[in-house]
Amino acid sequence: MSENEIIARLSRLFPRIGDDAAVLDDLVITTDMLVEDVDFTRAIPIEFAARKSLAANLSDLAAMGATPAYAVVALGAPPYLDVEAFMSAMAAAARDHKIEIVGGDLSRAEKIIVSITAVGRAKRPLLRSGARAGDRIYVSRPLGAARAGLELLKRGWSLEPPPDLPYGQREFAAAVIRRHIDPEPEVALGIALASIAEVTACIDISDGLSTDLNHLCEASGVGAEIERERIPAFPDLRSAGPLLGIDVRNAVLHGGEEFALLFTASLRESELSARVGRPVYAIGRVVKEKGMRLDGESLLPGGFDHFA
Amino acid sequence: MSENEIIARLSRLFPRIGDDAAVLDDLVITTDMLVEDVDFTRAIPIEFAARKSLAANLSDLAAMGATPAYAVVALGAPPYLDVEAFMSAMAAAARDHKIEIVGGDLSRAEKIIVSITAVGRAKRPLLRSGARAGDRIYVSRPLGAARAGLELLKRGWSLEPPPDLPYGQREFAAAVIRRHIDPEPEVALGIALASIAEVTACIDISDGLSTDLNHLCEASGVGAEIERERIPAFPDLRSAGPLLGIDVRNAVLHGGEEFALLFTASLRESELSARVGRPVYAIGRVVKEKGMRLDGESLLPGGFDHFA
Repeated sequence: MSENEIIARLSRLFPRIGDDAAVLDDLVITTDMLVEDVDFTRAIPIEFAARKSLAANLSDLAAMGATPAYAVVALGAPPYLDVEAFMSAMAAAARDHKIEIVGGDLSRAEKIIVSITAVGRAKRPLLRSGARAGDRIYVSRPLGAARAGLELLKRGWSLEPPPDLPYGQREFAAAVIRRHIDPEPEVALGIALASIAEVTACIDISDGLSTDLNHLCEASGVGAEIERERIPAFPDLRSAGPLLGIDVRNAVLHGGEEFALLFTASLRESELSARVGRPVYAIGRVVKEKGMRLDGESLLPGGFDHFA
Repeated sequence: MSENEIIARLSRLFPRIGDDAAVLDDLVITTDMLVEDVDFTRAIPIEFAARKSLAANLSDLAAMGATPAYAVVALGAPPYLDVEAFMSAMAAAARDHKIEIVGGDLSRAEKIIVSITAVGRAKRPLLRSGARAGDRIYVSRPLGAARAGLELLKRGWSLEPPPDLPYGQREFAAAVIRRHIDPEPEVALGIALASIAEVTACIDISDGLSTDLNHLCEASGVGAEIERERIPAFPDLRSAGPLLGIDVRNAVLHGGEEFALLFTASLRESELSARVGRPVYAIGRVVKEKGMRLDGESLLPGGFDHFA
């Protein structure tokens, strides 16, 4: 059974599951599990795994426009894990993002397992389901670094890429690797978007632009037309990426774990950027006709499948 | 580092962690992670692992006197796990206990990992820290079955113990094995206790009577004197247990995963039983002098260490 089939069956069992987080009165709640060798490896300093686990949950809260409030952390700890170092990094990340860790559980395990549940508050939670034909489709920042960083990590590279790389490529490699292992959730932007009535739907890009845009369209019962040249790419990705053997189109369109926000609004790019006080990027339009099109060609969801 | 040392260090990092669940306004939130081959094995039908995972969280809510409201479930799924069967069992258990599963996450993993966070509501949450000298110490039901069942499971026995066991022993063995793999959280009792002002402190017995009584005493800054003959043992445990090679004293005093409630109150046993509409068992008294004594002898915490 594919992940999609499993999720379709689970959604019949659990009809409330659907958005990035569940909405309970004015609370939103979300959970994520990260598993060693699936979501991160020990090639990376363990504090980054701690930060990234929390970031994944904060990004789900951001997608709902929620203000982070509380989190609980369950940790499966193998003997080689320095639990105190790990949890110290988690505590520091929680302080950075003003979320309070109020509970936890510690289990023995053969690999590192981090399971976090985060609770936030939102007066008007952003849902996936509010997009309407005519809305503009936005991404919150340039894309592609997370997948590019992952590809370089798979070559055995680390935060210090090989010193013999040409200048420029080496800096680019270090930047995308850092972006992959230490992503920044868009918490402040999510809160700002939730306060703007013209913002109609939001999701975070955890499975890739194409897959998450498809989620948003399906939840809203609409289609999408996006333009390749309007989709912002991570700095130097289009130039340095090919030199390093990175498939730029794939990284931008399908790369997961971006933790950028993908949202729809009835406002123009200049006005929305002004309202949130930073650039956001209109990449296309919501349309009535279902399905996704890129420059007029059919676009299929092809993002990272966490379960595959 | 022992689990206690780790927990002591973590509690400096996370001062809000301490009770069975965190109290947030009128909400309580708790999290538990269960790991295959640590907390359960595949010798047991997988639906019991699903039920028990939820039961551990519900027991934490019960210890706070909270009414279950919502849960989120993160599942690490190896290829051999039938995810749909597992989650169907979880959904059925949630319906039984009137808790709604509102979110989830599905990850690939090498062993089954179940991480649940449950949210409940409590106007007056029961804490560990309210016990006062002079209070009676109560347990909610006879103890010892969970440890006895675990010991028999470790022999390779299942829900159907060996057919050549003498009549009586076989029925006893089946009963304690079932109790170990399908424990019943004391949700209704917890809610009832929270409504009684004379109930001063509460915890669930997840690590063993001696260990959890020690937790309660330390949180309250008191000591405890309990009497062995007043501690109720699971039916037939004192007779059938020794015939099956079970250490009865150890099972009753130190056996974990009972999910019975351990609480203190300024009411007599007969009055408190009448108020909650079912028997509860006074096993001793809270005293000013710190430490625990069993029939006048020093009692040390010796329960199951989940991390050992």
